[in-house]
Amino acid sequence: MRSTQSLSATTVLFTLGSTLIGTVSAQTFQRLGTCPTLGCVFPPDQTHFLAGQLFDVRLEVHAPVNGSEASNKGVPDEKFTFCIAHERGPCVDAAKFWEVKEAPIEKWSFSYFEDLYAKDAKQSTVVNVAAKAYRALSLKKPGDYTAKLKYNNGATTVARWVVRKPNTRRKAKNVLFFIGDGMTQPMITAARLIAHKSINGVYQSLMQLDQMDNLGHQMTHSIDSFITDSANSATALYTGKKSSVNALNVWADSSKNSHDDPKVETIAELFRRRIGGALGIVSTAVIADATPAALCAHTRDRGQAQTVVTEYLHSAEFVNSTYKWPTGCKQPDVIFGGGAENFIAGKGSPNGTDYYKEFQKAGYKVVHTKKDLLAAGKKDKTLGIFSVSNMAKWIDRNILPENLKGQKNSPTGDGTDAIDQPGLKDMTLKALEILTARSKKNEGWFLMSEAASIDKMMHVLDYDRALGELLELDDTVRASIAWLKKTGQYDDTLIVVTADHGHGFDVFGGADTKYLAEQTSDRAKRGAVGVYQNSGLSGYTVAEGSSPTNQTIVYGAQGPNFPVQWNPRYAYAAGMGASPDRREQFDLELGGPRLPAINDPTSGNIVNPKDNPNGFSVSGTLPIDEGQGVHSLQDVSVFANGPGSEAFRGVYNSIDIFFKIADALALGRT
Amino acid sequence: MRSTQSLSATTVLFTLGSTLIGTVSAQTFQRLGTCPTLGCVFPPDQTHFLAGQLFDVRLEVHAPVNGSEASNKGVPDEKFTFCIAHERGPCVDAAKFWEVKEAPIEKWSFSYFEDLYAKDAKQSTVVNVAAKAYRALSLKKPGDYTAKLKYNNGATTVARWVVRKPNTRRKAKNVLFFIGDGMTQPMITAARLIAHKSINGVYQSLMQLDQMDNLGHQMTHSIDSFITDSANSATALYTGKKSSVNALNVWADSSKNSHDDPKVETIAELFRRRIGGALGIVSTAVIADATPAALCAHTRDRGQAQTVVTEYLHSAEFVNSTYKWPTGCKQPDVIFGGGAENFIAGKGSPNGTDYYKEFQKAGYKVVHTKKDLLAAGKKDKTLGIFSVSNMAKWIDRNILPENLKGQKNSPTGDGTDAIDQPGLKDMTLKALEILTARSKKNEGWFLMSEAASIDKMMHVLDYDRALGELLELDDTVRASIAWLKKTGQYDDTLIVVTADHGHGFDVFGGADTKYLAEQTSDRAKRGAVGVYQNSGLSGYTVAEGSSPTNQTIVYGAQGPNFPVQWNPRYAYAAGMGASPDRREQFDLELGGPRLPAINDPTSGNIVNPKDNPNGFSVSGTLPIDEGQGVHSLQDVSVFANGPGSEAFRGVYNSIDIFFKIADALALGRT
Repeated sequence: MRSTQSLSATTVLFTLGSTLIGTVSAQTFQRLGTCPTLGCVFPPDQTHFLAGQLFDVRLEVHAPVNGSEASNKGVPDEKFTFCIAHERGPCVDAAKFWEVKEAPIEKWSFSYFEDLYAKDAKQSTVVNVAAKAYRALSLKKPGDYTAKLKYNNGATTVARWVVRKPNTRRKAKNVLFFIGDGMTQPMITAARLIAHKSINGVYQSLMQLDQMDNLGHQMTHSIDSFITDSANSATALYTGKKSSVNALNVWADSSKNSHDDPKVETIAELFRRRIGGALGIVSTAVIADATPAALCAHTRDRGQAQTVVTEYLHSAEFVNSTYKWPTGCKQPDVIFGGGAENFIAGKGSPNGTDYYKEFQKAGYKVVHTKKDLLAAGKKDKTLGIFSVSNMAKWIDRNILPENLKGQKNSPTGDGTDAIDQPGLKDMTLKALEILTARSKKNEGWFLMSEAASIDKMMHVLDYDRALGELLELDDTVRASIAWLKKTGQYDDTLIVVTADHGHGFDVFGGADTKYLAEQTSDRAKRGAVGVYQNSGLSGYTVAEGSSPTNQTIVYGAQGPNFPVQWNPRYAYAAGMGASPDRREQFDLELGGPRLPAINDPTSGNIVNPKDNPNGFSVSGTLPIDEGQGVHSLQDVSVFANGPGSEAFRGVYNSIDIFFKIADALALGRT
Repeated sequence: MRSTQSLSATTVLFTLGSTLIGTVSAQTFQRLGTCPTLGCVFPPDQTHFLAGQLFDVRLEVHAPVNGSEASNKGVPDEKFTFCIAHERGPCVDAAKFWEVKEAPIEKWSFSYFEDLYAKDAKQSTVVNVAAKAYRALSLKKPGDYTAKLKYNNGATTVARWVVRKPNTRRKAKNVLFFIGDGMTQPMITAARLIAHKSINGVYQSLMQLDQMDNLGHQMTHSIDSFITDSANSATALYTGKKSSVNALNVWADSSKNSHDDPKVETIAELFRRRIGGALGIVSTAVIADATPAALCAHTRDRGQAQTVVTEYLHSAEFVNSTYKWPTGCKQPDVIFGGGAENFIAGKGSPNGTDYYKEFQKAGYKVVHTKKDLLAAGKKDKTLGIFSVSNMAKWIDRNILPENLKGQKNSPTGDGTDAIDQPGLKDMTLKALEILTARSKKNEGWFLMSEAASIDKMMHVLDYDRALGELLELDDTVRASIAWLKKTGQYDDTLIVVTADHGHGFDVFGGADTKYLAEQTSDRAKRGAVGVYQNSGLSGYTVAEGSSPTNQTIVYGAQGPNFPVQWNPRYAYAAGMGASPDRREQFDLELGGPRLPAINDPTSGNIVNPKDNPNGFSVSGTLPIDEGQGVHSLQDVSVFANGPGSEAFRGVYNSIDIFFKIADALALGRT
């Protein structure tokens, strides 16, 4: 009873290719994502380009030695051909099409497991590869392209590419792009609940995000799996290209070298190359972490932190001496975040050098504390690195500052504590000041500001700290809008706030934390959870010791838009479907971020006996090698104000964000 | 370090009231929701009205006999006064303000527990009450009103009411209002994943919901708790008034009688009273269930099914002989759904009468099968009741029809099986046909169509069946738009699709269900879950036995927009943070809807030994008296097309939906 859709010729070719796979159901593991057939084309089928955007081409022909796809005795076809046709034009050989030298054949092997059974049996499948690469190309004419890889005596892999017709009239002078890493609408709803007073079902104040002019949803999935990581999703947001987990601005090829994968140009690189405006990168994470890195870096492996900081300073051509990548971030005007370990001379820094010095040599002012940040002028390129590893969380900085002690995380590397760390708002407002001052007339500026630890705290199931980070982001957006209005730049600035993926968090009720802690069995403790009418009202918006039904409006020490108290007797009860074994007691973790599970050498991750000692145990749903929560599927919200922001309404793919921003800046060139 | 906001006089008065409560932290249980002081005003503070909308007023003065609020030796003040001021006008005594007779004093008592400790100790608090009610009033002048209840020698409870300035130019002739009960954006994302083919990260087709013209978010919380149920949330959507869990179009007072609580007029009643157009109600649930019931019924207790069906036929005045409620649904033109038990003569029907006959007497055509539904003409008022209890699920009707056998749920009550049940699309399209035919020129029609079992299947953690219902809703929206275009009504019809609340569901990876089933320990089974890159691609959009990486586009027997297969080896792995003890194996439940937990007389709800026998166990997070999943906090999406639909953009409260629809229909009258 199944009917096959009326297929285009291309799809039929894919079908033919697929039949080669036969009964292989490789899924948990794939031979190579984005390459279901034995001939691989990167950029893959369905890629959309901004006119003139730079990218590499990678072609591979696979010959599995063993396994269900074993082919040609493991000898890959080296005589494959590759041609490109524009619209209905002839299919022209790649070297001729782009007027470049014919690429040499490269060869390598890799291995993978076909499924979990093969992994358990340690039966790997070996694949021999013949490949070519063409570097730093572009397509300028809008329209449809058909690229064909012919191999194995008649097999064809077709990639249909589209160059979108670009907007050529610039709408926005500046772009302020906020990412709440891992931020979902259920989290925004929970943040509203704890930070804004509701009387009789009516909120007396709202999140800044609630008040933005335009609302959209974006789909976050990867190119080859339906759950993404932050490298992959940032690549989509910044380049308009879906990629694979852990990849930064490259399509993942099968070679071991994580720096030879085919690259694509980012919105930051385009902004620098086309317009030359001021560029800023702000994050509360390690500054070499995926979301900030993805503005400038190109690597298959997001873990290559040295590559990332090298690319901030020198762009990709420095990392890949084998060929020239003729674009780059060209020394961003502002770089603020954590991750001093990649700058302090030692094993974490590029070539072991003092990378603060390298930045200083290039003309950067370097700052390490909130005090120095606020005191810094606005004329210099500025590198602000405020801690080893990720920066302190809003709750610890503002509510539990004792937790900043004993961390030995000074960004100077002297082993003292990084006590005087700025928050996202401090960093963002200073970045705006510097970018505004350094932007030449009409060039404008582009700033990416990331609330990174919404994600990091959701990973460790520290819901309170995650919501603290989210509220800091909201406060930062609010303060940025006010500053832009004050400085007369608001009407020229496109502001976009979105996330890169979700975590399956939601609030499902209230909890009497006192009662919960005092019960002696897991099942009795669960009786402290109140659902529906027994969820009650938010205990976070009333003064300590006061009833949640108290309708007085008061503010805590951190002012409006934050909870009045963080550890009320009647707390929200929340959780997610995916976690390691854990315990829940629904109160604020006082000693710093939670660590729900620990890895036992024999049995994998088990409940951390020190976490939530008064809570009830919940068995996990994740593989026992996962000690944290994981990302989830759900679409994330997009909020936008300013010129070009109407384009962010509705439901679309994450890659469309790149095109919408590029169109607001008129970055495409035919 | 806490600062008190500059408070309005009213808020200060509330503060004074609140101080009476002292250290009471009543939260899991409240004395009376929406009444934190000892004087209660309904409509409560912060109520917004459509100009001319009918409502009752209820006043109560509480005197707790014992407990932390014990007052006046348990004797409530019967000499309370109540006045209303418009804008800066004088505060006029209620009877005079509305020119009605002074209401008599009513008296009763009730009891409650102050918290879980009191409940465990069985120490209830008794409250004596003096009360009054004024019935069927309205406010016609837009602006601010201040209502003051004075009691206990100087205490005052103030309610600020707002009559919104209504739109008076009608934009939409017809309204088609869809509710996906419990439907969240994470569910929509999951439904897209299983029903639409993605190639290299690009969806080749989309949900109808993805393609709607306008996107918004609404907040779903209750008036007195942050989690809602469907009665309460439907009340907000249909009346613009937040209420309490289980309440249908009334504010919950403290009296035992569930029919004397203060009522408010619904959008359906207003549409009938103001315009007289055709009215339709469609649901896949029991037709007396909360979401359909809330169009017409008024009761504190959504469980009063006989009241609901009585109000469909006779409106509220029939139920409350003590006073006249001078508005009502006045016999909707279309009523389609399940719940035959409230019509078949017997204990479930009003007064034990044959309620099918009562409807027939009132001129209704009555149908009981899909065949008869499709064959029914379009001229008669039509009652279609297609099963006892809730209707069969899309998956069982379409994929596993054997599950319809042995249910003995024939709507005729003859003990046979209801095999020939229509789906939401069948019912909605027939409803549109009848409403169009019965609508007089310019009057137009209003149809509410509910996909009820998204919620019901999420409650039992049957994610597949819930997504089947969601996809059926999407298909129904698509088909309805096509039908409206075909009949030339599309440009006159406001279409809104939303939900009433969420469940904390999300997809967090893939699962090799074969591998999972074959492992022998819970911890080994969890190794079948693939996260991030190992989540892979959707196994639901390829032919059975084919790899998820197969890029061929094929359709299943149910056509596009539904999965090609429902039970692939590589399934999605999903769940939620709130559940009873359960087991998960991530494949399709073949024997009909899941029942994850069963109630053990001594230990409460435990894993149902028959559910997911090959799965791994997950301990629950809910009180052990909960055998199902529960509703969650997250904002839900709103999608809208047609005249007036631009108003549905952005973020707002659920009550605003009522005002947006009322404005599109110009139902307000000053």
